[in-house]
Amino acid sequence: MRWYNTVMKIAIFTLFPEMFDSYLNASILQRAQASGRLTVDLHNIRDYTRDKHYIADDTPFGGGGGMIIKPEPVFHAVENVVENSAETPIILLTPQGRLFTQDVAAELAQYKRLALICGRYEGVDERVRQHLVTDEISVGDFVLTGGELAALIIVDAVARLLPGVLGAEGAAASDSHATGLLEGPHYTAPPVFRGWTVPDVLRSGHGDNIARWRREQALRRTWERRPEMLLTAPLDEADRCFLAVLALETAQSQS
Amino acid sequence: MRWYNTVMKIAIFTLFPEMFDSYLNASILQRAQASGRLTVDLHNIRDYTRDKHYIADDTPFGGGGGMIIKPEPVFHAVENVVENSAETPIILLTPQGRLFTQDVAAELAQYKRLALICGRYEGVDERVRQHLVTDEISVGDFVLTGGELAALIIVDAVARLLPGVLGAEGAAASDSHATGLLEGPHYTAPPVFRGWTVPDVLRSGHGDNIARWRREQALRRTWERRPEMLLTAPLDEADRCFLAVLALETAQSQS
Repeated sequence: MRWYNTVMKIAIFTLFPEMFDSYLNASILQRAQASGRLTVDLHNIRDYTRDKHYIADDTPFGGGGGMIIKPEPVFHAVENVVENSAETPIILLTPQGRLFTQDVAAELAQYKRLALICGRYEGVDERVRQHLVTDEISVGDFVLTGGELAALIIVDAVARLLPGVLGAEGAAASDSHATGLLEGPHYTAPPVFRGWTVPDVLRSGHGDNIARWRREQALRRTWERRPEMLLTAPLDEADRCFLAVLALETAQSQS
Repeated sequence: MRWYNTVMKIAIFTLFPEMFDSYLNASILQRAQASGRLTVDLHNIRDYTRDKHYIADDTPFGGGGGMIIKPEPVFHAVENVVENSAETPIILLTPQGRLFTQDVAAELAQYKRLALICGRYEGVDERVRQHLVTDEISVGDFVLTGGELAALIIVDAVARLLPGVLGAEGAAASDSHATGLLEGPHYTAPPVFRGWTVPDVLRSGHGDNIARWRREQALRRTWERRPEMLLTAPLDEADRCFLAVLALETAQSQS
């Protein structure tokens, strides 16, 4: 079990702080903030411009479409807000960054503070990347309008790892990706819906059988959908036997 | 150039419709909706419960922590709202789904309607997955509190592809991942900031040189950060020559 901070302070730098309100003020993130375990401060990059028109972006040198966020307001904003830059990762959200995964979330959850800079438009002036940020993260291989949703994903994934944020301790540990496998199926009431029934084992009351069934379902789903995850997931002897059975099944169905 | 719809209607099914407001009401998504090119309807799964306590979730069969979204309200909600289910992908946002990429965004942008179901808590009853949804999508290998941010990512990435949503036509086509390469650096005013200067070529006014420099920077960044993308990116003869130079540079720096 890794050690995580009990209190996390995240500063977000954006041209659109108003985009964050309703997500941050609902559900688990709202409760995490209300309990004092998480602080999220939104900083408008535009407030750190020093010209009278509050211009935070400009056209790119060399031409081409779109607008680039200027270096000055980003440097000014981060330098004003981040107190101890040696201990605070300064992260640019950008499609060019390293891919965000659950391992990266666990890594970030060990810091007391994070600074997240949301790119926008065509991008951010290269000097921000070269001389200000200490890390660059992408949430996936798709094109978003800006880094705001990426920042919310990081806040959500990291907050869930802070002790006391989730209701049941350890609930985060059995989620998909936290075990290195995809989760298997879940069923709740009613036991029969439109003729579709819940598997008997789940209603048997036999704890060991239920645990084994769930593990095998998780292995089966991962085998079928994301087999590459099995290369790195922690597996025991029983898991390996079950995977051998799955491999045989697959071979037979193809022959 | 693919053909995309000019009008897209997206229905989102969630237990937390209020989480979406501020993101949907800002920037490009706000404008896309105001111009009539995009409609996003939020449906609260809880409104489709048929018991007097509006219970949408329950404990899992077989025990364990967390709550599972019940099958009835999800079936009722989707069946009430989706008019032509044969032509509307019914997508469950779940960590067990196929990975969302720019190619998936382009695929979804060709439909007139989409239905997005946001999982929550520990998950959604398996019968929803087996008998209602037609597709399952994950935005990445990390654990989120629910599918709401994943749904917003899909809305954002798909909306950008609809004709007329972005200001400059074709601006979407040169973004990172849209070309199959990472984007290279961008610079804007001032030309010198804290002694750090903009590359001369970008201020040369020589269009061909600028285009070649940008292409080489994109190739270099992809080579350094995501070399596996080069296996599938469309490359011409000049690109291949430049990659050969990069390979030589790398070999020399390692020897």
